[in-house]
Formats: sequence, C-alpha cells, structure tokens
Amino acid sequence: SSSLSFRSHTCGELTAHHVGERVSLCGWVQYLRQDMFVILRDFSGLIQVLIPQEESASHLKSVLFDLTVESVIKVTGTVRQRPAGQENKRMPTGEVEILAESVEVFNVCRTLPFEIKDFVKKSESLRMQYRYLDLRSSQMQKNLRLRSQLVMKMREYLCNVHGFVDVETPTLFKRTPGGAKEFVVPSREPGRFYSLPQSPQQFKQLLMVAGIDRYFQMARCYRDEGSRPDRQPEFTQVDIEMSFVDQAGIMSLVEGLLQYSWPAEKGPIKVPFQTMTYEEAMRDYGVDKPDTRFSMKLMDLSEVFLSTEINFLRSALSQPEGSVQAIRVPMYFLIVCSFFMCMICPKELSVVLVNEDGTLKSVLKKLLSVSVTDELLQRTGAEPGDLLLIAAGSLHTVRPLLGNVRLLCAELLESRGVSVRDPSAFRFLWVVDFPLFLSKEEEPEQLESAHHPFTAALPEDTQLLYTEPHKVRGQHYDLVLNGCEIGGGSIRIHNASEQLYVLKNILKEDPSLLSHLLEALDSGAPPHGGIALGFDRLVSIIVGAPSIRDVIAFPKSFRGQDLMSCAPDFVSEEELKSYHISVKWPTERGGEEEK
Amino acid sequence: SSSLSFRSHTCGELTAHHVGERVSLCGWVQYLRQDMFVILRDFSGLIQVLIPQEESASHLKSVLFDLTVESVIKVTGTVRQRPAGQENKRMPTGEVEILAESVEVFNVCRTLPFEIKDFVKKSESLRMQYRYLDLRSSQMQKNLRLRSQLVMKMREYLCNVHGFVDVETPTLFKRTPGGAKEFVVPSREPGRFYSLPQSPQQFKQLLMVAGIDRYFQMARCYRDEGSRPDRQPEFTQVDIEMSFVDQAGIMSLVEGLLQYSWPAEKGPIKVPFQTMTYEEAMRDYGVDKPDTRFSMKLMDLSEVFLSTEINFLRSALSQPEGSVQAIRVPMYFLIVCSFFMCMICPKELSVVLVNEDGTLKSVLKKLLSVSVTDELLQRTGAEPGDLLLIAAGSLHTVRPLLGNVRLLCAELLESRGVSVRDPSAFRFLWVVDFPLFLSKEEEPEQLESAHHPFTAALPEDTQLLYTEPHKVRGQHYDLVLNGCEIGGGSIRIHNASEQLYVLKNILKEDPSLLSHLLEALDSGAPPHGGIALGFDRLVSIIVGAPSIRDVIAFPKSFRGQDLMSCAPDFVSEEELKSYHISVKWPTERGGEEEK
Repeated sequence: SSSLSFRSHTCGELTAHHVGERVSLCGWVQYLRQDMFVILRDFSGLIQVLIPQEESASHLKSVLFDLTVESVIKVTGTVRQRPAGQENKRMPTGEVEILAESVEVFNVCRTLPFEIKDFVKKSESLRMQYRYLDLRSSQMQKNLRLRSQLVMKMREYLCNVHGFVDVETPTLFKRTPGGAKEFVVPSREPGRFYSLPQSPQQFKQLLMVAGIDRYFQMARCYRDEGSRPDRQPEFTQVDIEMSFVDQAGIMSLVEGLLQYSWPAEKGPIKVPFQTMTYEEAMRDYGVDKPDTRFSMKLMDLSEVFLSTEINFLRSALSQPEGSVQAIRVPMYFLIVCSFFMCMICPKELSVVLVNEDGTLKSVLKKLLSVSVTDELLQRTGAEPGDLLLIAAGSLHTVRPLLGNVRLLCAELLESRGVSVRDPSAFRFLWVVDFPLFLSKEEEPEQLESAHHPFTAALPEDTQLLYTEPHKVRGQHYDLVLNGCEIGGGSIRIHNASEQLYVLKNILKEDPSLLSHLLEALDSGAPPHGGIALGFDRLVSIIVGAPSIRDVIAFPKSFRGQDLMSCAPDFVSEEELKSYHISVKWPTERGGEEEK
Repeated sequence: SSSLSFRSHTCGELTAHHVGERVSLCGWVQYLRQDMFVILRDFSGLIQVLIPQEESASHLKSVLFDLTVESVIKVTGTVRQRPAGQENKRMPTGEVEILAESVEVFNVCRTLPFEIKDFVKKSESLRMQYRYLDLRSSQMQKNLRLRSQLVMKMREYLCNVHGFVDVETPTLFKRTPGGAKEFVVPSREPGRFYSLPQSPQQFKQLLMVAGIDRYFQMARCYRDEGSRPDRQPEFTQVDIEMSFVDQAGIMSLVEGLLQYSWPAEKGPIKVPFQTMTYEEAMRDYGVDKPDTRFSMKLMDLSEVFLSTEINFLRSALSQPEGSVQAIRVPMYFLIVCSFFMCMICPKELSVVLVNEDGTLKSVLKKLLSVSVTDELLQRTGAEPGDLLLIAAGSLHTVRPLLGNVRLLCAELLESRGVSVRDPSAFRFLWVVDFPLFLSKEEEPEQLESAHHPFTAALPEDTQLLYTEPHKVRGQHYDLVLNGCEIGGGSIRIHNASEQLYVLKNILKEDPSLLSHLLEALDSGAPPHGGIALGFDRLVSIIVGAPSIRDVIAFPKSFRGQDLMSCAPDFVSEEELKSYHISVKWPTERGGEEEK
C-alpha cells in the first residue's frame, strides 16, 4: 500500500526487521514529545521520529519544532532500534524509531476544534460537522476499512465462486404504488417526478425474467422516514436474486456468503444457522427477531390459572386467544427497585418475587392457593432470588409486551454488571414461515402483505390463497443477528395469474400500476427468489458500533441533515423553474402559501 | 454456476465429455424443430433436447409439443452423442443432445411482441419497453456479464493489489455552486432541497483530508442535461483518489488498472500509454481527444502563403493567431462528390484535388504560382488522387474545424469500404498540460475553470497564478480511448490559501459556499490527486456497442424516460404536500400557473 506513493513504507508497518533501512514516511504530526520526538501517524499507525540534536541539523530541528499538531509532512530517515529501556510495548512500532535526515512540510494545520485522539470524547454534532477530522480516529479508520474488506470478500464469493452478475439498477424510477416513504425528484416535464426507490425489488425480478440467472448488487436505497434515530435516508443493501432456486438454496448461499466474508479477527461463524418458525419465535421470545444469546424465554402459564379466581387472569383467559405468560428473571434484587419496574409494572405486569426461603412476595400472593403456587414455581423453575413477570391478555399483546420486557431486563442486568449476553458472540438465526398477510390495523377485515406482495405462498398453503388467505404462510425468511433483523427475502410469485389474484382479489390494489411486472411474469418468468441484507447494520454489529452512523463515511443526522455542508439547503425559485415546481411556505397560522 | 440450483449443468457447458451423464437443465424454449427437438436456452447457450418418440413416452411428448416459445422448463435426461452427420459445428454444444426423460413446466409464455433472436431487428423503443425480453439476447447477456467481470477485476486490482478502500459517499447532498445540471430532491423542511451530485468530487477530497489515503468507488453520478442523445441522467464512474501521489503516479495506477482488468478475449493492451500535451493534440488533431488510430494530421501551411496575393488567406494570416492549415485525405474520388463536401466546402474549406498527372484541380489553382504549388505539394506530401482541405483563420476556429472534418472524412471513407481505423484496435492516449483557465465566452476578460476549480497548477506555472493566470497550465490529465474521452483527473490544490485565491480572486466565486472544503484544506490536508473514468462509455467501447444504452441494464430513453414503467410519472398534489412544493403547470400562453 505504498506503491506509486511519495512514501517507501507506512508508519505502522515498521518493526525491528527494518532496522538500518532508509525510509520515507508521509503522515500527520500526532504530537511532539520531550522536544526530541515527533510522533507521526498515518492510517496504519504511529511511529516515533527522533529529531537530531546536533548543531549541523539545526534547520531540520527548527522546522520540526515549529510544526503544529496535525500538520502533514514527509520524513526521510533511517530506522533504528530504540535505546534499551526506551521501548514502548503498547505501541506496535515501539521497538524502533526513525532518525530524521530531512523533512518536507506539505501543509501546516490550523488549530482544530478537537484533538484527533481516541480518548477525546466529542459531541455527535461536532463529529458530524468536522467529519473529515472524526474519520482520522483509529476506530473510524478501522470501521471503514473493515467495511471495504467485507464487501470485497462478498463480491468475490458471489462473482467468483457462484457466478453472480453484478448489475446496476436505476435509482431514478417510477413511484411505487403506496410508496409513501419515497423521495421524489422533479423532472423537466411539468408535473412528472422520478422516485428514489426503497429497494431494487422490481428490477431484480425483471432481471430474472431477463435470464440473468444470478444477480447481485451493493444497492443504494432510499427511504424518507423524516426524523428517526439511527435511520439514514440513504443506505446500502446486499441485494441478491437467483433463478431456479428454492428457499433452502438462498439460505445456504447466504450462510456461505457470511462465512466466506467474515473478518478473521472476529472468529469463525458456524453454519448452518439455527432456524425457527415465526410461530416459535413469537411463542418463546415474543418477537420475530429473537436475541438468542440468552434465554429468559416466555412461558405459557394459562393452564396453571385455568380455574383461577383472580379476576384479571380469568377475564384475560376468557377472551379470544387469551393467555397468561411469564418470564423468569434472575437476581431480582438488582433490578426490582429500578425506575423501569416502577414505571411498567403496576399497569400491565404482575410481579412475583421468590424470597430466599422459597416463599413468594407479591400482591397476588394471598390470592394464590398452595397448589397453584407450587405449580407456578415448578413450571417456571423459579428459584430463590428470581423474579417472575406475569402478563395476561390476548396473545397478540402479551407476547410482544413480555418480549420487550425480556430485552429491558437483560439491559438492566447488564447495566448492573451481570453478564447476560456475550458481547463477542454472533448468533445468527433464520426465522421462517411468516404469515403472508396481516390484517390492517385500521380495517381488520382487509389484508395487507406482511412483507411485500411478490412473496410466494408455502407450496402446501397455496390452495388456501383462494379460500382462507389469512392462514397462508409465505416463503419468506428473515435473517436475525443478535436480535437485529439484518436481512429478509423470499421466493417470489412467478406465475402472472397468481400475482394478479394476490394484488387484485386479496390486497385490493390497482394492478395496472404494476402492469409491466405482470406482463413480464407472463413472458416466461423462471421460478426465482432472493434476499436483501442491510449492510450498514451488519457492519455496525460486527465492529460493535453503537450506531450505523459509525460505519458510514458521511452520514446524515437523525433529522436528515449533513452538518458539514448544511444539506439540504435553500434553492432559488429561479433554479426550480426548469422543474415546474414552487415552494409552498408554511404560514404562521399553519396553512401554506406561495411567496 | 449451477450450485444451489434446480439444474445440474448449464445448457452451454455440455460437450462430448458429458456423454452418458444424467443431467437436469433449466431454461427457455428457443424453438421446436422437426417435431423431434426442443432447443433449450439459458444464459450460457443452447442445447438440443431430443423428444422420445416411443408410445410409452407419449405424455412427455405431448407436454413438450405443446410448449410455446420462451416457456420455462426443467428437463432431465441423458447426454448422448448426436448421430453421425447430425452434428452442428456452429453450435458449441453441437456434438451432443439430451434424450429427455422427464420435464417440468415452470411457466408458459404468452405470445411475445418480438422474438428473442439476435437477427430480429427491433426498434429502440420496443427494446426499451420490453427490456426484460431484450436482455435475453446473447449480445446483451454478453455485455452485462463482461461489465460485471470488468468491475470485479478493477476492484481486485484496487483493493487487493494496491490497498484502496471502497468508500460509499452520499448521493443526497448540497447543491454545488453553479450546479445547473443537478437534480434537486425536496426535503420535509420547507424550501430546503438535497441535490444529486454530478460526482463525489468534494467527498473524495474530504476523504483524503480524513486520512483514508486511497479511496475508490464505483460511483453513481447524476446529471440533468434534459434531452441529449447517448447521455443518461444517471451513470457510473470509477472514482479514484490517492494521497501523497503525483500525476505520474495516478497515470501509472490507471494504466495498471486497465491492463489488469482488460478482458482476455480483447487481446492485451500495452502500457505505458502514449502521452501528448493539449497543445500537441490541438496542433496535430484539432481536438483535445484525438483518435490516434489513424493519421491525416493537421498541417500548418501558413509559411507557404506568407506572401500570398489570395485575399482570404492574406486576411486570415493578418489576424491574431491567424493561420492556414490543411489535412490531406486519400482517395478523393470516393468522397469528393458526397453530400458532406457540398455542404461544408464552399464556406469554410478550400478544396484542392491532386489529379492523376500531379496537376491541381481547384478554384484556387489559377491564383497559385508555380513555386507555391510546388511547395504546397511538397509540404503536404500530396500525391495523385489526394484531396487537400485547406482552412484559414484564427487557430481557435481553424483547428477544431479541421479536427471535425478529419473525423468526418474517416467516416465517409469507411462508409465506402476503405479501412481507415482498425475496429479491433484500442488506442489509449493521455492528454496533459491543459490550460487551467479559459476565457468565458460571453465575457472574455473573465476566466473560468477549464475543468474544475480544485485542480492544481503545474509546479513550474504556480507563480503565474498571481500574475498571468490565463497562461497557467494545470496538473490535469485526460484519458482518451479511440477518440473518446473516457476519463479525467488532476492533482488537487491542497493549500487552503491557494484554493481561496483561485475561487475568490481568479474565478470571482463566493468562497463561503465551499467553506467546509476550505476549512478542511486548512486542517492538515495531504497532497492528493485522482481520476474518474466513465465506466459506461469504457464498457461500450470494449464491447463495440453503438450506444452506452447497450451496456446499461435499464437505461433511460434520450428524453430521460423509462419506457417500461413510464417514469417519470405524475404524483398527486397530496403526496407533494409533505415536501412543501406544488407543480406550476404551463399555461397555454406560455406562462405558468398553479392548478
């Protein structure tokens, strides 16, 4: 990585092996030390440069002394062993130093708004405003380089190992029916707009119809969600589609892909990944993307309370899909007094503490018979010091509630120093057999796609499409890593009449908006399926970054702004003229008017 | 490339080596032949499937007979040698055929608007409307696959050989000062717009300031040029930037990149490429992107006519930078009568034909003395049958005129069957030492950047910036292939005060619009430079495609439309509300109004 460059070596690569070599290094002045040393930095690391102290080198000395921190220089000199006792074991190049012979100053640095040192904590907005300084930190350098290497390995696997074709698809496209989160781009034709697509879904399917056979793309996608934390208006997905393949084929492909490209320093990952049905995930974890690094699973206690006299449990069990569920959390004394318990419990959760002597402590206690108490302890395996959190109601509300509480408890325990989840573990999980359709919230008798309208039914459920569509499971698969959904895909409908039936009869959508896709399916579409992996999220989990902003070179703020250049920005009415649009300014009383 | 698939082999890979093997193939029915054969196609090629004729296979037979062209099937059977005399030498799989044992029909194809055969000529708009069918042609399959392989090799070279970091930069950004060709994207903040950048120029420089050291990206770029033939509103460039490098370093890098990634079947390319200064290119070829596959260079005849009595030559020579220039074209009889000559010559070109006996034929003939005639013939090397095209005037007009005429003559000769340019040759050429600034057409005393305001001056010209900026040459380099500019780059200004001087004092631009870049240069910017290669154009030249539309999966029409989905399309006023814009509809009398 010093080819074609002014330097002969990078700072970080020099070791005792280089002693005696004459080298040229280019980099940034990290700091000056003891009036004798310049610590020089490039992307690869730090090296100590010894300033010669002889009178004959006085010019060199004064140039180096005058350097401000973060100035950019080239130093030529000889690598030498550091004097005995002066080695720095914590520094990879700490055995050696460079005796400077000459220096060239490329650029003098002004006083910066913050220092480029990893221990200097900066505010997020300052980091974003001076992103070009923030990126100089060793962590950000590591993140961006790991990302680049990961994507390179993925490409090698897909192109070179499995014969995929890298195809670029347009980002200026037609608005998707109901694509409320799509940015619009005015064209020079009055009233006509392009749209920035949320994914290349239509294109990848059309490429299969086109006989491309195996397509992939590191696809830039766009989603206008307004202000949402840790979402970005543009993001990248590993977009994959294959013909003549089934669900197991795509799942194997992705397992192989991740195994092949996984960074060596993060340890190997095992394949195949665990697979769980949607129903199992909801039953055991209360969520469709379980964090399987820890247990604390949901337990069904409905049978225990079948003949209970406790009112709220009785009424819960008498409603449709009524259930009593619980999770068991260890070491209640660590969390029971916390803010969280006070806030959540009174309303929706019943709390049962198991005392050291095995007795219970709970408002429910006097309502529980001895036999019910015994059964409760036995079924849940609760031991002294444990906390039982019991919720009752419809499965649709109880499960997600306990699923959330489970994660909150893990966080609370961890914040008090209890090891719940191994931070170096990577637990992949496939979730399969999702329902194909869900009831619309505002209109429960109307169905909407659980994922998108192009997903095929499970072969054994296909006939239900025409009779009981709400019971149909789809050939959809989600990939979950440590409780985060990092990908999702499906086998698609390749039959035009089935696709038309789903759009028109089940979803009640206007099929003419997708006429080009329907026509394509009718023109010799092969069976096909694919997946999209959220690349930013995947990288952020691998490097352990708290936010996807830490693995994107120039992210937007949570309000969608680039704080460095101040984008988005005002554009003159004159410039908007060729696009036949004008701004409607909000008025003080809440309406809008043209200026 | 049959891993994880329903098939065991691809159609095109089967040869005599596979005889006796039982195989499963998936593909499209190309056609049925002689009631005995199905010709099956996938991306890899064609294979002949023999339909068994026995009574016991009557079901299989009837299924295959009923297939429409372009239906999608899976065939399982045994590879066998074709009977002697029935081999097809023109077909790579022509020695073998598959004896079908079973068939699965995945999809039946309706009647298509055109056949998928390479010899079927379709109109451009029909091709675009049914792009998913057009892409099934062997030529388009080849183009997209070669493109994918080329980009893969480029990445290998940059990442794996030279340590470049693949960094994705935003496409939702701030409007560039004067960026008249940038699409705007309304945001949810009233009056504020993102802009889709024409290139990641600012980001690549900021990444160097950030210490990334070596950056590349296959960058999606956007340019709104309205309707222009063979331009696309979105296109891809190979975007490269390096720190601590000079012009020669970048040029070597690109030569190595192209040599490494060049498709083997196109023959090797030689490096280093020829280099020519801008001045030499203009002098010899009348253009800054010469097609060096043929000669017909411009010749300066000013000296021949120094003391001429011919009026228009005298007056041309007396003006500033006045000159008489000529090109010599062989075989005038092939082109002299053509439409082109009639149209162009009378006004701007003087035509001299050299007869078979060495005498001249020209309206100028009687005005030329014997000695001038001799000198003319000697200087130009004109021989019997040659055509001399002479133009007189200022160098700034004469050179481009003859540069154009030179290319037109080559086309005319080729259209008449004369071989002028080797169609299989790839002539790369670097053009260097461009002027840094040009006079604005409408305001000649005001300078504008020849390329962009971030290009550094040649070291030996830097002082001229402050005294005679119009004389400064830039460290800019263009890469030309067969007369097409396929790339351009420069060493950038890395000194903040020099950049400020160029923006403010020379270009008279408002530097506050680039304050983030100026601040970045002041924060320890390394010397750096880079290049961008127009990837679509490069691929189209390699595959010999007439248009970049032939190497883009889903291109827009020359009016910027997607003819398949009808984008751009109308968007309801309701949907525009969250972006605080409204459409201004043109009125009949030419103004605009809101609906």
